[in-house]
Amino acid sequence: VNLILLHAAEIGEDGVTELTGARAVHIATVLKPEPGQELRIGRIDGPHGTGTVVQVDEDRVLLRCRFDASAPPRPAVDLLLALPRPKVMRRLWSQITALGVGQVILTNAEQVERDYFGTHWLDAPVYTSLMLEGLQQARDTLLPAVSVHRRLKVLIEDELDALCPEGIRVVAQPGHDGTFFSVLAASPGDRMLVAVGPEGGWTDFELSLLQRHRFHTVGMGTRTLRSDTATIALLTLAHEALR
Amino acid sequence: VNLILLHAAEIGEDGVTELTGARAVHIATVLKPEPGQELRIGRIDGPHGTGTVVQVDEDRVLLRCRFDASAPPRPAVDLLLALPRPKVMRRLWSQITALGVGQVILTNAEQVERDYFGTHWLDAPVYTSLMLEGLQQARDTLLPAVSVHRRLKVLIEDELDALCPEGIRVVAQPGHDGTFFSVLAASPGDRMLVAVGPEGGWTDFELSLLQRHRFHTVGMGTRTLRSDTATIALLTLAHEALR
Repeated sequence: VNLILLHAAEIGEDGVTELTGARAVHIATVLKPEPGQELRIGRIDGPHGTGTVVQVDEDRVLLRCRFDASAPPRPAVDLLLALPRPKVMRRLWSQITALGVGQVILTNAEQVERDYFGTHWLDAPVYTSLMLEGLQQARDTLLPAVSVHRRLKVLIEDELDALCPEGIRVVAQPGHDGTFFSVLAASPGDRMLVAVGPEGGWTDFELSLLQRHRFHTVGMGTRTLRSDTATIALLTLAHEALR
Repeated sequence: VNLILLHAAEIGEDGVTELTGARAVHIATVLKPEPGQELRIGRIDGPHGTGTVVQVDEDRVLLRCRFDASAPPRPAVDLLLALPRPKVMRRLWSQITALGVGQVILTNAEQVERDYFGTHWLDAPVYTSLMLEGLQQARDTLLPAVSVHRRLKVLIEDELDALCPEGIRVVAQPGHDGTFFSVLAASPGDRMLVAVGPEGGWTDFELSLLQRHRFHTVGMGTRTLRSDTATIALLTLAHEALR
């Protein structure tokens, strides 16, 4: 944990927060601060700040909180992801949040198995807690917006413009020659939505649907990657292209 | 599994191989080929080829093998990695092999805990089997060379030139401004060795040791990533820069 994240409701009017549970144990047993020491804190969906240690017990920590005037900027990359199998989705939540995504749009696709949508890794309390791990790792405070869509065609044709009005759109397809850098050179911008398909790629129908809705096609060499490896790699390239 | 990998010793003089165990079960229950059908195969550390199905039983498959004239090229990126904690190292073996590495050089560093070196994920039979998973995923046949080094200074000063004579050397340090693309623009080349440190980065001493031995420094933004996420991201950027 590189940052202690707090909910707004946990902070008293006097600016003092009383932590119990996992965060308190982490502070007491790993960070082991003296009273008066300052810890990096953040308010979820709000600004960074510092927490001055008032008191540390084994499982209870009092911090006096002071926050910056404004929240950090939202990450410049959004992710549209064909839902991978549950085990892979579980691993991805914290890693995509650590890499930085403004928004996560999960969708069905022809190569996605229907029963993947039944997983508890799509329950908001479950994935929120995994995303908080990623934020604490990367020292960010902004939880990505998450939405789950059962019909790709409806999502792309009717919903995406409202969900994601800004930014260059990019779709990754295995074996394609395009690069993030060439797309950005041709269509400059400061936000990017990256669509990552199932392991074997999007079907021809899906790719052409995306291309008709302003998605530029990119590839990443000829090696077939597991969905989580591919997603991490593609988010990295999008961030680097925007850097 | 996107490729069936075979050891040279498993292939008879008549070009026929008899598979039992996990590969046979995968073929019989997932691929379910008819006799006469061709499967993608590869000889470990050798060429790709096709295996014509002769017979399929529940747990035994006969293939007639035909191989290309030459092996695929070695991946153009080598990895020098400060040994991460065992759980992370376990996850990395297949993913770095899938992304493509010619060589894996594992090293100690000040922020590496000594007891990480005792993990069974550093036993050759264990990591070879994980690397084979990554090769089968990415349809590659070449197992990376692996070496483990207990002393960074000895490695960099006395051993690295012999281990890794060719290629641009790059060291990743959190928060640094340099990019893979700017390094490659200034020092063109077709191979790259990427040094990835512990989660918090290399110490000043380590960074300056690496810089004195031809390593160019790059960064990847300000977010602190878990070692496995960072390693995947950095290998991706190295491959993309060389593409």
